[in-house]
Amino acid sequence: MRKILVIGAGKSSSSLITYLLNKSTSENLHITVADISLELAKSKIQNHKNGTAIALDISDDIQRTKEINNTNIVVSMLPAHLHINVAKDCLKYGKNMVTASYVSKEIMELNEEVSKTGLIFMNEVGLDPGIDHMSAMQIIDSIREKGGKMLLFESFCGGLVAPESDNNLWNYKFTWNPRNVVLAGQGGASKFIQEGTYKYIPYHKLFRRTEILNIDGFGKFEAYANRDSLKYRSIYGLDDILTLYRGTIRRVGFSKAWNIFVQLGMTDDSYIMENSENMSYRDFTNSFLAYNPNDSVELKLRYYLKIDQDDIIWEKLLELDIFNNTKKVGLKNATPAQILEKILKDSWTLQKDDKDMIVMQHLIGYELNGKKQQIESSMVCIGDNQTYTAMAKTVGLPVAIATLKILNGEINATGVLRPVTKEIYKPILKELEENGINFSEKEVPYLGYNPEHVIG
Amino acid sequence: MRKILVIGAGKSSSSLITYLLNKSTSENLHITVADISLELAKSKIQNHKNGTAIALDISDDIQRTKEINNTNIVVSMLPAHLHINVAKDCLKYGKNMVTASYVSKEIMELNEEVSKTGLIFMNEVGLDPGIDHMSAMQIIDSIREKGGKMLLFESFCGGLVAPESDNNLWNYKFTWNPRNVVLAGQGGASKFIQEGTYKYIPYHKLFRRTEILNIDGFGKFEAYANRDSLKYRSIYGLDDILTLYRGTIRRVGFSKAWNIFVQLGMTDDSYIMENSENMSYRDFTNSFLAYNPNDSVELKLRYYLKIDQDDIIWEKLLELDIFNNTKKVGLKNATPAQILEKILKDSWTLQKDDKDMIVMQHLIGYELNGKKQQIESSMVCIGDNQTYTAMAKTVGLPVAIATLKILNGEINATGVLRPVTKEIYKPILKELEENGINFSEKEVPYLGYNPEHVIG
Repeated sequence: MRKILVIGAGKSSSSLITYLLNKSTSENLHITVADISLELAKSKIQNHKNGTAIALDISDDIQRTKEINNTNIVVSMLPAHLHINVAKDCLKYGKNMVTASYVSKEIMELNEEVSKTGLIFMNEVGLDPGIDHMSAMQIIDSIREKGGKMLLFESFCGGLVAPESDNNLWNYKFTWNPRNVVLAGQGGASKFIQEGTYKYIPYHKLFRRTEILNIDGFGKFEAYANRDSLKYRSIYGLDDILTLYRGTIRRVGFSKAWNIFVQLGMTDDSYIMENSENMSYRDFTNSFLAYNPNDSVELKLRYYLKIDQDDIIWEKLLELDIFNNTKKVGLKNATPAQILEKILKDSWTLQKDDKDMIVMQHLIGYELNGKKQQIESSMVCIGDNQTYTAMAKTVGLPVAIATLKILNGEINATGVLRPVTKEIYKPILKELEENGINFSEKEVPYLGYNPEHVIG
Repeated sequence: MRKILVIGAGKSSSSLITYLLNKSTSENLHITVADISLELAKSKIQNHKNGTAIALDISDDIQRTKEINNTNIVVSMLPAHLHINVAKDCLKYGKNMVTASYVSKEIMELNEEVSKTGLIFMNEVGLDPGIDHMSAMQIIDSIREKGGKMLLFESFCGGLVAPESDNNLWNYKFTWNPRNVVLAGQGGASKFIQEGTYKYIPYHKLFRRTEILNIDGFGKFEAYANRDSLKYRSIYGLDDILTLYRGTIRRVGFSKAWNIFVQLGMTDDSYIMENSENMSYRDFTNSFLAYNPNDSVELKLRYYLKIDQDDIIWEKLLELDIFNNTKKVGLKNATPAQILEKILKDSWTLQKDDKDMIVMQHLIGYELNGKKQQIESSMVCIGDNQTYTAMAKTVGLPVAIATLKILNGEINATGVLRPVTKEIYKPILKELEENGINFSEKEVPYLGYNPEHVIG
């Protein structure tokens, strides 16, 4: 039996582990799931005959090296900063490794040794990064093979609530780490290229510069710019491209309302608020408004941010109860961002029967035989339940598929890699399709970067 | 002859050195002015018989210690981070020291030794910090002596252009380090207390939350909040005060127009812009606006920031030439803030005959014998010319006065100090008054913190 060690049994590991267990008999596999919580590891194995759950403290060098030495391939679903010790062990004992995380500088420094040893450390093979790389590169490569020249690349991804569970005014619930949602876009200006011109958006304007997307069968969405639109420019071979933009997808109207929190300063994570523990939600809101002995918190906020009486944004704020005088924050020494996260969790936590949804879209413009053309490629994945969420499926399945294909020698490149070459992405995308994760592609008119989508 | 060593002969040293030279015969003083530029040091001495100019590289330990050992008292007008080696030498050779800078953590750590040796290191005895401490503490102490209870302390200061040289739409020119003006307010939310409630303003709202001030004879001004309003709460003994606010003064309308730069992202100093050197002013402006094949940079900006056609803000922007297509930035690898500074210097540099102006105001509310009262105390100082600027006078004269009074034993406290006690501020303020730097004080109705200044 071939042995696979999966380290980390969190939410994003369920589809990954189930996929491998389902293949275990036909493929002759034994899956060991290691987590600091033995309970959690057991819950993923569910007494499957080809699975073993073990407790593993990743900082325990002796046990970690023993388990890694004792397997054929390692999947690390740990938080990104914990991969490095696993990677070093894999190098030492000659094991291949798979992760869904960004390639860190530390991991990249192992590249030469990994290649020399004939090993493969496959990273960024989850959803974003992962499916975004593979689906985009498949289109880009096919355009290049025909002799086309790339003009425009826009790519969008978002984790949302499924339409059937979408029952709040924000059309949003937390389907992933809430903290990351609250802090999204912070840390510097967003940078991208539109028609050959570098553009910069400061954080406090980010949620007012959205683009509208259409996904057939699901209606309209909006996207705000990622900070890192140029991150893969060279990796995708797009150094001369005129338009390069990556964005995060929300339902239409989310960003304009979210901007209220940004403008007030509620998303700031850089300082601790006085008396945060005993503050009411209303006190929290009032902290960002000028003192006035006569006016209500409500009117001060409306006036400050110019919210009309009949603006739906106002209903969105009321829905979150930010003017409640009795609900207490209850967090000691909390930052504004931590308090806002607490308030949002009251309203945006997925309920037992709620399903999530992943949406991805690429817009790819190119010139072929003197004609400018554009491809729109979209993928929507809806979760089955709270275990096999869309997030778990789209992150975990490509990891599982890549792992098995590496184990079977179907992928046999070496080094520290991302799935951006044809030999790698093609078989993975094919099998993802068989598992219900597929892109629908269509030709649309090439408009260049044309924010109003009008033909001039 | 008693010897005074002044290290640093920059702009803020002129009034300081002239004051000491003028007193040198009657007070039996010899002044040595040391600067890395001998020329600059000479220009400050102007061949006065009781003065010597020397070249001094502050990192040259041998020469520095020699000069410090050879004097009776040291004035350090160096940038704040360079004081520490001078301070250590002063401690070693038993010399008193005077600076206009904030007490750093490093300097404060010397306090015990300085006290034990019977020395005085007097800091924060310039304008702001300096005159603000002294003039505020004089009023606060006199209220306390009468048995009054402090309710409100608001303090404002600004460096502006004098009315007679005020000839642009912004009513502003650079009278101090332009870089600090461009970066003002950045680095975290501003925090203060209004009627017992902590309030926080994020940077991107700072310039839209101004207060209006009136200075008799000079008309209206506005102020935006400093980041550090609570900095001196304990030092001033105001731990229980209901309202505590410190602000920076500008002419009315400045902040609302400055906010345009903040909103666009032009004050950001955290990243380098692509191709900054060859960019025109217009390209720079356009970098912060969405691409559009049909619209002008002007209309895009107006629309983005909702600037009405007849808004004076628009004229302010035109005056700075930010839409100019031929003027080049000419700075390699520059941040937005560096480029904005360059553009502003074209318009806001003091001309040969221009004069500057310093404005300071304290609003101090208190309760005495059951009655709530308020004192408004204001100071305006106008520069004589480009050498004896208002900034040079208000920073340098209190330093010079403190130096002579320490040398003469009229101030004889010990330790690392600020001028916040009566024995120190009283004689200095008295002599400042004789030198034309004086506060006019008047009783005004106590309104509490009342943003509209209406009697409810």
